[in-house]
Amino acid sequence: MPESDHTGAVLTIDLNAIVANWLLLRGMLAGAECAAVVKADAYGLGADRVAPALARAGCKTFFVAHVGEGVAVRRVLPNATIHVLNGPVPGSGKTLIDHQLVPVLNSLGDIESWGDLARTHGAPLTADVHIDTGMARLGLPPDETETLIREPERLDGIKLTFLMSHLACADEADHPLNHQQLTDFLRVRQPFKDVHASFANSSGIFLGPEYHFDLARPGVALYGVGPRPGETNPMAQVVRLQGKILQVRDVDRPQTVGYGASHRVVRRGRVATVGVGYADGYLRSLSNSGNGYIEDIRVPIVGRVSMDLITLDVSDVPVDAACPGALVDLIGPHNPVDTVAAEAGTIGYEILTGLGSRYHRVYLDSAD
Amino acid sequence: MPESDHTGAVLTIDLNAIVANWLLLRGMLAGAECAAVVKADAYGLGADRVAPALARAGCKTFFVAHVGEGVAVRRVLPNATIHVLNGPVPGSGKTLIDHQLVPVLNSLGDIESWGDLARTHGAPLTADVHIDTGMARLGLPPDETETLIREPERLDGIKLTFLMSHLACADEADHPLNHQQLTDFLRVRQPFKDVHASFANSSGIFLGPEYHFDLARPGVALYGVGPRPGETNPMAQVVRLQGKILQVRDVDRPQTVGYGASHRVVRRGRVATVGVGYADGYLRSLSNSGNGYIEDIRVPIVGRVSMDLITLDVSDVPVDAACPGALVDLIGPHNPVDTVAAEAGTIGYEILTGLGSRYHRVYLDSAD
Repeated sequence: MPESDHTGAVLTIDLNAIVANWLLLRGMLAGAECAAVVKADAYGLGADRVAPALARAGCKTFFVAHVGEGVAVRRVLPNATIHVLNGPVPGSGKTLIDHQLVPVLNSLGDIESWGDLARTHGAPLTADVHIDTGMARLGLPPDETETLIREPERLDGIKLTFLMSHLACADEADHPLNHQQLTDFLRVRQPFKDVHASFANSSGIFLGPEYHFDLARPGVALYGVGPRPGETNPMAQVVRLQGKILQVRDVDRPQTVGYGASHRVVRRGRVATVGVGYADGYLRSLSNSGNGYIEDIRVPIVGRVSMDLITLDVSDVPVDAACPGALVDLIGPHNPVDTVAAEAGTIGYEILTGLGSRYHRVYLDSAD
Repeated sequence: MPESDHTGAVLTIDLNAIVANWLLLRGMLAGAECAAVVKADAYGLGADRVAPALARAGCKTFFVAHVGEGVAVRRVLPNATIHVLNGPVPGSGKTLIDHQLVPVLNSLGDIESWGDLARTHGAPLTADVHIDTGMARLGLPPDETETLIREPERLDGIKLTFLMSHLACADEADHPLNHQQLTDFLRVRQPFKDVHASFANSSGIFLGPEYHFDLARPGVALYGVGPRPGETNPMAQVVRLQGKILQVRDVDRPQTVGYGASHRVVRRGRVATVGVGYADGYLRSLSNSGNGYIEDIRVPIVGRVSMDLITLDVSDVPVDAACPGALVDLIGPHNPVDTVAAEAGTIGYEILTGLGSRYHRVYLDSAD
């Protein structure tokens, strides 16, 4: 990781807040276990730090997307249960077994190849089965599900841990697809009554207990993103991104700022340049639309976001507070992840997973 | 780097093409030296591989943004000249000197602190001076430039390598700001006649020899992005991104695909799921707008790009060619970086610098 003095910004990640969020979600689940999704390097925040912090708080079950991610989490959590959502891609069988990773079987083809491997292995192999109830992305489609129900012997050699499905519109509480997916999942589950079931993601937990089943799989809410857009966000904020001012200039003549001359100066004022750009995941769509804060004073982005730099209008900030070396909140108390996402025309998830590798990262952890 | 079998995609980076692009640009420069900009980890492609390949081809001068990047490039290029565009941020002086990095001084404040350091150091320290002629981002603003011309003793102790400026609209050949910036730079340069000058970025090279001065600093064109939008791209393509199909499903009933149910199936067909998402830098703005290719058949993105997955309509592809394990060109011969960028509503630079860390990376290098 780059040293603080050699970088354009400091990214502070509050592991205590992640743990608090996990405990809050766990508290909403009466009988169900609360897992944690740590795919995409724990949504950009560092799975090697996030997963152990959650494990210390009592989390026993983790989900990743890729086999390689599972191997990385296994390195820091020798005893946890780790599920691999994208399943047993060709060539990954030995790695999954060696690292005791539980693949999610997403098709009859997956089931067949995992069963074949179990027979070669000479002992049952654990796995989940993912039933698609409306995402049309991963999971057994309806015809394959019916085949599996008719021919349960296809699961011979496989020790089934969870029957799973995934909600497409859980963040819209009133979307009719939620209840339709629930109904479909309940129906498919009938023949698998003695198998545990997992259905809810972060937003799904908030849809009510009938969505909880045996295991919930929250991801984004752990990292501070609001699980119910448009409503008050109950999650603690996890991320603070502070960009460093490199230079401040007076703008007092008719001129433009940045590439494409997209911002025209209309009043006498000051522009600060900060060493963060779209190469750091500060999306280019924040050009002329994002906002930073110095203390509680808003400093709007002026001009285009460039690769390594942004320019902000600091005219309203006292000169001493907007000087080279001073820090600007690019994500912070006044502009949390969801706000920045809205300004960029996207969702908090993409802001988090885009957080770049050039930041100096600081972890807040009461265990330290 | 993740192994190929454990990842969702293979990213192939053609170092020979980067070298060919550098040689093409160098050939356009009569008297001027051709440097290479390798900031942002060589625009996302790996500075530790790109910089040595260019050095072997004859490139002697490199530019990075941050001090930390300069330290990383110094590790692989012990003898190159390395300039740090974002300048001597507070606390970085010793590192700059220890690694023989040349900071770009962007303000009178930078000049003062670097001069102070030279006096403490007891020997002249090299640096560039960056004159702002229209970006209003980094560089001495007009009033500071006038002060420096009046008081050249401010540079005492500093061995000035290049007087620099940066074009704001070089990719629009007819933009009036180009000529205005050139005129301003020529005027400022008068009192510094014996100092070398550097002005042109990739697109600036194409504006003609009066923009070349002593050193050109191409970046993005080295990596295959067209320096003149709207015209034929003379640069060789450098990047190929091939996503792996995880699953293919028949869609033959009224249904929706993906989060938010944003894509409604209108014809009987097949949807392939590929293990690449916005956490890999495949921007979410490509939802329902991007296109992959299998061989030369277009396979449009259907539904939203999710964190680790995309879904593509492969109805037009023979069944055998769109099966689990098959590769889809997400960036390739039929959809180069600039095309993907246009579909995402951004520029090629952001597509390149966003290329994620979960890909299996393959470098093509005739030196291997």
